[in-house]
Amino acid sequence: MHLDHRLNQSSEFIADLTVCQARLSHNAAFPWLLLIPKIDNVTEIIHLSSPDQHLLMDEIALISKILQDLFIPDKINIATLGNVVPQLHIHVIARYQSDAAWPNPVWNTVNQEYSETDLQARVELIRQHIQFYFQ
Amino acid sequence: MHLDHRLNQSSEFIADLTVCQARLSHNAAFPWLLLIPKIDNVTEIIHLSSPDQHLLMDEIALISKILQDLFIPDKINIATLGNVVPQLHIHVIARYQSDAAWPNPVWNTVNQEYSETDLQARVELIRQHIQFYFQ
Repeated sequence: MHLDHRLNQSSEFIADLTVCQARLSHNAAFPWLLLIPKIDNVTEIIHLSSPDQHLLMDEIALISKILQDLFIPDKINIATLGNVVPQLHIHVIARYQSDAAWPNPVWNTVNQEYSETDLQARVELIRQHIQFYFQ
Repeated sequence: MHLDHRLNQSSEFIADLTVCQARLSHNAAFPWLLLIPKIDNVTEIIHLSSPDQHLLMDEIALISKILQDLFIPDKINIATLGNVVPQLHIHVIARYQSDAAWPNPVWNTVNQEYSETDLQARVELIRQHIQFYFQ
């Protein structure tokens, strides 16, 4: 799997699912995951086969449920934009009425850093929940 | 089907699909469609059944293909946010490197009005393409 260097540098590997790699955004201001289909040269959902589109939806739902369970957000934001990084990637973000960007979308707003300990702890927490659902 | 008054006032009915109603955003700055599941009290994709989630993905792909065919965009942006209007609605937007918000997301950027003639012409064009694919 080719991974765009900007996606690689701005997020942390969590787990490989059936179609996507799940990663945690390095931006600690929001519980923010990325789903990146492990298929080269794909920039749009319509480049995926119909079965892969359905599997992608299953993985979006899986990650949404995990964010719901772990972080009890007020809203889940799901988006694929790709205007800056064309490689297909889907944002799944837990939002709160109390968060730093509410009610606006998160892009180009606040950026906070995780400590290395907090980053690894959150990755491990989400990884365990993915394993629980995914097996 | 209950339709939030803000969605109703900011967009125009195009067609009823299997799961969603397709509507055209009144913002003429972007070719911008909305898919709104015709199921009451749904604010998250994970509130839909798994079969309905797959049908929703099919309808997102259908609308994406139609935007691709008709408007030949540089990128398609797909998102469900719902921070302001909780009723589940999915944005499917044709984006250009030359558009007024590129490369940023479209929300809270430019708002242009259609003339009534242009609005109805665009609705009719998209409706015909939906009928072509959907039958």
